[in-house]
Amino acid sequence: MRFTYNTKTEREHKDMKMRAAFMNGIDKMIIKEIDKPTAGAGQVVVKMEYVGICGSDVHYFHSGRCGSYVVTDDEFMLGHECAGTVVEVGEGCKELKVGDRVALEPGITCGECEFCKSGRYNLCPDVVFLATPPVQGCYEEFIAFPENMCFKLPDNVSTKEGALVEPLSVGMHAANQGEVTLGDTVLILGGGCIGLVTMMCCKAHGASRIIVADLVDARLEKAKELGATDVINSGKVDVFEEVKRLTDGKGADKVFETAGSPVTIAQTPFFVKRGGTIVLVGISAKEEITYNFAQIMDKEATIKSVFRYRNVYPQAIAAISSGAIPVAKIATHEFDLDHIQEAFEEAINNKTDLVKAIIKVN
Amino acid sequence: MRFTYNTKTEREHKDMKMRAAFMNGIDKMIIKEIDKPTAGAGQVVVKMEYVGICGSDVHYFHSGRCGSYVVTDDEFMLGHECAGTVVEVGEGCKELKVGDRVALEPGITCGECEFCKSGRYNLCPDVVFLATPPVQGCYEEFIAFPENMCFKLPDNVSTKEGALVEPLSVGMHAANQGEVTLGDTVLILGGGCIGLVTMMCCKAHGASRIIVADLVDARLEKAKELGATDVINSGKVDVFEEVKRLTDGKGADKVFETAGSPVTIAQTPFFVKRGGTIVLVGISAKEEITYNFAQIMDKEATIKSVFRYRNVYPQAIAAISSGAIPVAKIATHEFDLDHIQEAFEEAINNKTDLVKAIIKVN
Amino acid sequence: MRFTYNTKTEREHKDMKMRAAFMNGIDKMIIKEIDKPTAGAGQVVVKMEYVGICGSDVHYFHSGRCGSYVVTDDEFMLGHECAGTVVEVGEGCKELKVGDRVALEPGITCGECEFCKSGRYNLCPDVVFLATPPVQGCYEEFIAFPENMCFKLPDNVSTKEGALVEPLSVGMHAANQGEVTLGDTVLILGGGCIGLVTMMCCKAHGASRIIVADLVDARLEKAKELGATDVINSGKVDVFEEVKRLTDGKGADKVFETAGSPVTIAQTPFFVKRGGTIVLVGISAKEEITYNFAQIMDKEATIKSVFRYRNVYPQAIAAISSGAIPVAKIATHEFDLDHIQEAFEEAINNKTDLVKAIIKVN
Amino acid sequence: MRFTYNTKTEREHKDMKMRAAFMNGIDKMIIKEIDKPTAGAGQVVVKMEYVGICGSDVHYFHSGRCGSYVVTDDEFMLGHECAGTVVEVGEGCKELKVGDRVALEPGITCGECEFCKSGRYNLCPDVVFLATPPVQGCYEEFIAFPENMCFKLPDNVSTKEGALVEPLSVGMHAANQGEVTLGDTVLILGGGCIGLVTMMCCKAHGASRIIVADLVDARLEKAKELGATDVINSGKVDVFEEVKRLTDGKGADKVFETAGSPVTIAQTPFFVKRGGTIVLVGISAKEEITYNFAQIMDKEATIKSVFRYRNVYPQAIAAISSGAIPVAKIATHEFDLDHIQEAFEEAINNKTDLVKAIIKVN
Repeated sequence: MRFTYNTKTEREHKDMKMRAAFMNGIDKMIIKEIDKPTAGAGQVVVKMEYVGICGSDVHYFHSGRCGSYVVTDDEFMLGHECAGTVVEVGEGCKELKVGDRVALEPGITCGECEFCKSGRYNLCPDVVFLATPPVQGCYEEFIAFPENMCFKLPDNVSTKEGALVEPLSVGMHAANQGEVTLGDTVLILGGGCIGLVTMMCCKAHGASRIIVADLVDARLEKAKELGATDVINSGKVDVFEEVKRLTDGKGADKVFETAGSPVTIAQTPFFVKRGGTIVLVGISAKEEITYNFAQIMDKEATIKSVFRYRNVYPQAIAAISSGAIPVAKIATHEFDLDHIQEAFEEAINNKTDLVKAIIKVN
Repeated sequence: MRFTYNTKTEREHKDMKMRAAFMNGIDKMIIKEIDKPTAGAGQVVVKMEYVGICGSDVHYFHSGRCGSYVVTDDEFMLGHECAGTVVEVGEGCKELKVGDRVALEPGITCGECEFCKSGRYNLCPDVVFLATPPVQGCYEEFIAFPENMCFKLPDNVSTKEGALVEPLSVGMHAANQGEVTLGDTVLILGGGCIGLVTMMCCKAHGASRIIVADLVDARLEKAKELGATDVINSGKVDVFEEVKRLTDGKGADKVFETAGSPVTIAQTPFFVKRGGTIVLVGISAKEEITYNFAQIMDKEATIKSVFRYRNVYPQAIAAISSGAIPVAKIATHEFDLDHIQEAFEEAINNKTDLVKAIIKVN
Repeated sequence: MRFTYNTKTEREHKDMKMRAAFMNGIDKMIIKEIDKPTAGAGQVVVKMEYVGICGSDVHYFHSGRCGSYVVTDDEFMLGHECAGTVVEVGEGCKELKVGDRVALEPGITCGECEFCKSGRYNLCPDVVFLATPPVQGCYEEFIAFPENMCFKLPDNVSTKEGALVEPLSVGMHAANQGEVTLGDTVLILGGGCIGLVTMMCCKAHGASRIIVADLVDARLEKAKELGATDVINSGKVDVFEEVKRLTDGKGADKVFETAGSPVTIAQTPFFVKRGGTIVLVGISAKEEITYNFAQIMDKEATIKSVFRYRNVYPQAIAAISSGAIPVAKIATHEFDLDHIQEAFEEAINNKTDLVKAIIKVN
Repeated sequence: MRFTYNTKTEREHKDMKMRAAFMNGIDKMIIKEIDKPTAGAGQVVVKMEYVGICGSDVHYFHSGRCGSYVVTDDEFMLGHECAGTVVEVGEGCKELKVGDRVALEPGITCGECEFCKSGRYNLCPDVVFLATPPVQGCYEEFIAFPENMCFKLPDNVSTKEGALVEPLSVGMHAANQGEVTLGDTVLILGGGCIGLVTMMCCKAHGASRIIVADLVDARLEKAKELGATDVINSGKVDVFEEVKRLTDGKGADKVFETAGSPVTIAQTPFFVKRGGTIVLVGISAKEEITYNFAQIMDKEATIKSVFRYRNVYPQAIAAISSGAIPVAKIATHEFDLDHIQEAFEEAINNKTDLVKAIIKVN
């Protein structure tokens, strides 16, 4: 299914073509020519400049599925972390004009259910999310998209940074859920892309002590580069003792689990401070975890969780623009659209210094 | 250890005696004469009228321990749910006067640690709590107690109701932690004393649909009497289907686990609504529980926990006075001090219609 | 302008007519026959049963304007507090079916701006609100309305109560803004319709002491009937002294100004407790008020305000259904559609025992 | 009255003397020798290193009063912004040891009232605050002070920075009251010391756009040096137009009034965004202000206020230590104790580049 917000109003220009990358079976990408879209009512057409590769994209590419979602089409377009420049403005648009550079928020929600109305649109049961089967993604030169989901970038924010707003958003929402504030001591379990963006957002909220734990030294080095005050290689030192030492025996105000590992999830009750908060960000392949609730209750700790994000694009763009979040540093690997196959292979195989691979489309 | 808030200032009247009940080995109570206390600086002496029997009292009485706390004294005074009348006012007291009827909050905290200063005094590591070894309790005719921990009862609140403020407080804090509000659908797992007081507090906050689940019909009948809109006997019907049916397939806004059973704790992720909150109130004997965090994350649910209570005495007394919480109805069994042995035996053995046994001291 | 949510999809049945009441110049109502609407996509047609008369309706009727909104059409249909029964279901509707009884939320918002997305849709700059020129109201036999703005009533809530949900909603939002909670002492300045619904909502949230101040004894009697614990006739006693006395010299936790009078607005800093909250609900004709901010700062008080309401229909309906809010009692006067002229005249002239006049349409 | 937390336990060493500065009539300071204190139970003796000069100190010095507080003693010791090194530890102290460098929080509260218990100790009616008559201040070489009010400084925070924690605290509390968060646009009215510390705290919380308005260019230059993104000289440009321009016509998410001027207080409703928050920090000499509440209600804005601060010392010290707040930059002028007279004169007369004068005591 090609993403179209309003099938009634979108007309395809049959005579104008563009290039797009499709997953064509497991571990295989092809570039094809398809029709270029035009702007329906309330839509703009964005000339795509950068599209990142998300962990979910890699899952679909490498295994044909991600969680309960399965790619069933022979050809399926991935990609949902994107930004570009407006080249056409549809009827009824109010804010954007041709030439505006924008980041796209890839989840279109109904606007009518109790979750949407109360501002928790990430819980909307009718969300249409790019690159989530059957909805196709955006590894393509142009996309028609609802104007209200395209967020204008200030002059000092590049479209590359714009494409990174999407992965950053998970960290933004995680830090918001954890109510991270000035002076907090936070512990991030996992130094992958989600761990790092969560860390950067905690820092931007003013967290003073930021501890990152992981098993891979290269990730911990990157964490230090991006703002961690302390790192722990959990494979080399006793992480319980080290957290205790770094927090004067008190534990962390906020503990973020981003690795999605049953091991680290089960550790969280021991790391959190009395009255503190655990935020579950990483998704475990194992549904059930043996968990020490006695610790939780003794500390009167709170456990929050994160499902995508909500209302964070403006906040994220402002934070990038002000310099509070140097998000560009997470785009460690860049490829052009013709080399998307290599990009995905690198994303699969590089377990050390790759944080985020990004595709330059145009 | 006899409870004394300020050993330097409290003087014992050696010539004035009073009666008190002591646990004298497992399952055995004795009544003794001991010295009557006088009011130290900042203290009042309260002539005790009612003291309830808490589940923790029963644990100490029947097994010599409760959680990690162990009775090591040969004679140990239990009891911490109490109210009475002020008969003496110490130097420096500002609010209370002789004749005032008061409910006593039994946990004295330091007032100086970060938890106390930030209003979360229930997390104070230096709390001194009545009837928690080595601090003795209050099954006695008089107690000297800090004035600021004695809350004056309005004319239309009896000292019997005053003694019930303490068990009610756990429900008050649970409802506060769950941020129960007008119109909420709540599910209470467990219809014992804590389940019932939690339910009454949810109702007083305006919850509209209040579902109680338990295995004992007598408890469910009591729940209906006290305000439950729906009850489920989990041993007789499929509780998952029934919760689904009663909540239009959505789950409950707030789920309170009060049974402390690994079974019901593990059920909570399936009962809570998307974006909803689970509040853990009951303490499980088993520290670790196998728990479905996939459900939690998919719903972006929050898990809160409850450790005693904080800042709820004024709120509870106001709610009893206004008629919002008919707390007297939980005192199903009453005994005088001379029959405290029978009272404890009834509390141990009555698994059906006993919610709370209370001792009339004077 | 006749209200139509989606002009592209709504088709008018030219051959089916219905009756509707129009304001036809100042202080004059006429009944006309107009086309009966049919359901567009995402819409239902509701057979109207009850429509209340709001203060704003009276303003338009009696002076041709309300605030900055002016009636410019020769004929203008008022009314926005309404409920009825679904008689037709448009394409794409998901929840409602013919025969469902529903209350209508009269403000349609864009769903796309930052306010809508963050759940504060009452601040949406593009709201379309019934009976706010140039958008017509609903004193008519049938209306086509977006399904998602029609809230199904439970069996034990009548359509008359359903029509009262709208005026109740202002009180619901006011109590939510004030974060009224169990045990609060609240003071309501003004005992008109808004004062009374605010009071009922505070009570339903568990406020223990509820003081209402007004100049009219009949209103204060009604307040007592509806749940006020104390009333003050500010014209007869010293309201400052009386509030002091009733609150033990502390002031009220929450002060609601519902009269919209410069006099009572200016009194609020003196009535609120240290650390308490003032909620401004009533709209003053005078834009600027001389206000004692020294009191506010000395008490570190908070001032909140109320602009319409948001996300309260489900909460209000649940509270009516549970019996927490006996909203029917505010409908003191009832008229049928043929007597709408008399109804408005009564609403203008009755300064004593009229709380809310309501029109029975069908 | 010499400040003593516990007069019963503090013993004076009659044979050990120290130097202290006293206000000796209007505009006159003298240095005297007085007894050196020793540590009572729960107290430490701190060898003072730095004590700042607050606006309130200047008021007392120059006019003999500040607000409703009046200096009546012939000799009165001012000063409450201080830090030093622990040189003696009293009985019962738990955390601190000789040699620890500490910042002192100068307001000792009762720990027993409803405000203290609920964490809002700044509202405690029984607060004892240094340099608030009749309680003397700390322009002296040593002070005995409650251990729990002495906050240990990390190695990378100097005692000079420690003394600045107190003035910073007002800004910390203001930013907390305003719930400033990552990405916010804030407007600070007034570029004096309070305006600047508020600004620094907003920045540390992640505010992206920080606008400061004042009449003095030197202050605006300092504001830019300390992190303002934009400054407005309200005497030279139309501040309404400029705020509009800088906020894309929307207004600021959070508006902080720090000047305490009736003019700027009255401007706040026009500067705040729909749904935004105004925080009143500056104290106006005029109690009543004519204020446009119509704007407030139309925008559903919130007004918060600030009375001293609470629970911010640990947060402030952590933020200084992490580098988030370069607080040392506000100490623009430094004097030793012998030149305290000159220091106060400079504080009175320098209306341009003085932000904060600080006394080096030892």
